[in-house]
Amino acid sequence: MSKTIETTQVYLVGAGPGDPELLTVKAWQAIQKADILVYDRLVGEEILDLAPAAAQRFFVGKESGRHPVPQHKINSLLVGLASPGRTVVRLKGGDPFIFGRGSEEAEELRNHDIPYEVIPGITSASGCLAEVGVPLTHRGMATSVRLVTGHRKADESLDLNWKSLADPDTTLVFYMALANLPEISERLIEAGLAPDTPAAAIRGGTLPGQQLCTGTLADISQRVAEAGLVPPALIVIGQVASFARDRGNRPVDITAEFAAFVREAGHA
Amino acid sequence: MSKTIETTQVYLVGAGPGDPELLTVKAWQAIQKADILVYDRLVGEEILDLAPAAAQRFFVGKESGRHPVPQHKINSLLVGLASPGRTVVRLKGGDPFIFGRGSEEAEELRNHDIPYEVIPGITSASGCLAEVGVPLTHRGMATSVRLVTGHRKADESLDLNWKSLADPDTTLVFYMALANLPEISERLIEAGLAPDTPAAAIRGGTLPGQQLCTGTLADISQRVAEAGLVPPALIVIGQVASFARDRGNRPVDITAEFAAFVREAGHA
Repeated sequence: MSKTIETTQVYLVGAGPGDPELLTVKAWQAIQKADILVYDRLVGEEILDLAPAAAQRFFVGKESGRHPVPQHKINSLLVGLASPGRTVVRLKGGDPFIFGRGSEEAEELRNHDIPYEVIPGITSASGCLAEVGVPLTHRGMATSVRLVTGHRKADESLDLNWKSLADPDTTLVFYMALANLPEISERLIEAGLAPDTPAAAIRGGTLPGQQLCTGTLADISQRVAEAGLVPPALIVIGQVASFARDRGNRPVDITAEFAAFVREAGHA
Repeated sequence: MSKTIETTQVYLVGAGPGDPELLTVKAWQAIQKADILVYDRLVGEEILDLAPAAAQRFFVGKESGRHPVPQHKINSLLVGLASPGRTVVRLKGGDPFIFGRGSEEAEELRNHDIPYEVIPGITSASGCLAEVGVPLTHRGMATSVRLVTGHRKADESLDLNWKSLADPDTTLVFYMALANLPEISERLIEAGLAPDTPAAAIRGGTLPGQQLCTGTLADISQRVAEAGLVPPALIVIGQVASFARDRGNRPVDITAEFAAFVREAGHA
């Protein structure tokens, strides 16, 4: 039986933690053939520049002092832009299926019978922590890892199962948690996690200007405040955080071969 | 103050879930310049073929009927192979810092003052589940995700905090858990997780021949047995597993430009 091959119209692409070299080859190829880019605040210029110059660009992130584009409007935008023979690339920081609300966009595309593909990305927990030498699991220190969003709406409290989170054998990684770090630390200690559990915060991980702040569950929020770290940042709590070390700003290092490939493909 | 630039001698590289296109650009570049490859069972031929033909290859995975190379011997091998001006690439399936014991290798290299770099990879939870349409988080379904190893040694029991794991708002992803799936399901139900919680098992995710098996927490181990799934497989338990759908075998699709680049770089 022959099968109609539907051509992907929308790619939901994980842009990874920031360093363009941490894009997957598949993501990089999708960006290269984009007719339209729809992107967030956490996607950097160097990644956007991989797209053809003629590609239309839609920024849907939050700019300082402005409200972000509501999710339902982003969903509608993607549906509206999708068209046979046109490649729409929706670029999201990290992985689209981990705190990226990519699944809501996928659902909307499915509801409109629009062929789409999800291209996974290196999530911040993996990318930023590798950069500062912190493994997510380590024999005798962590048998599991838990990725949690530390973000809440202005009028809601952090609705997390603190008892379940306060497991000394688990590495906890909080995304978008800097604003709520004092509450997170306090609640975890109340729930039984040792105050001297190692903790670290990383801002701009994998990018030049990366900042690392280390401490314990008890003092990390104070140390972060003293260091003047501003969002977005990633927080890791657990024995493995004791491995954290600053390797200094690392220059982004695209090899000459890769750069030549990008140039040639752009002219093809 | 001038700083001595140490040249990386060993790269601990995440090979991702299987599809070569899911390598990061950085991983791909490291493999391309490898003088020596040290690799596991889960790293496929197509990825190994990206290395120069002249590169020496060391297989340290488990072959059927044989014992795997013990971790301490792999650590010593890496230290022994490392040498200034030589590029050793240690390739591990998924991400080296998530259940990959990469942190033990990193520790050993650090102890011997050998300059190394960790290149993160797409972990199976992200790569394989994207392929079958399962997001790790979804509004109203999962506010956190937990990655757990379901593997145990022959003479030990699964030492997991079942009470903490049985959280209906968390997506559970078990790595290397197929053999222990009956025990895992039973313990989670005992600890209070609803028997009708959606569940899925994926084997060979992102590779041609990928197999998907869906069900509930109560019947997934029976369904997996009926389908004849063999390890290694990934298990996902949680509301998001209800999104799982089989997209059929997908051919690996390296673009002509990328293939040409690989060829040219190989001759350079």
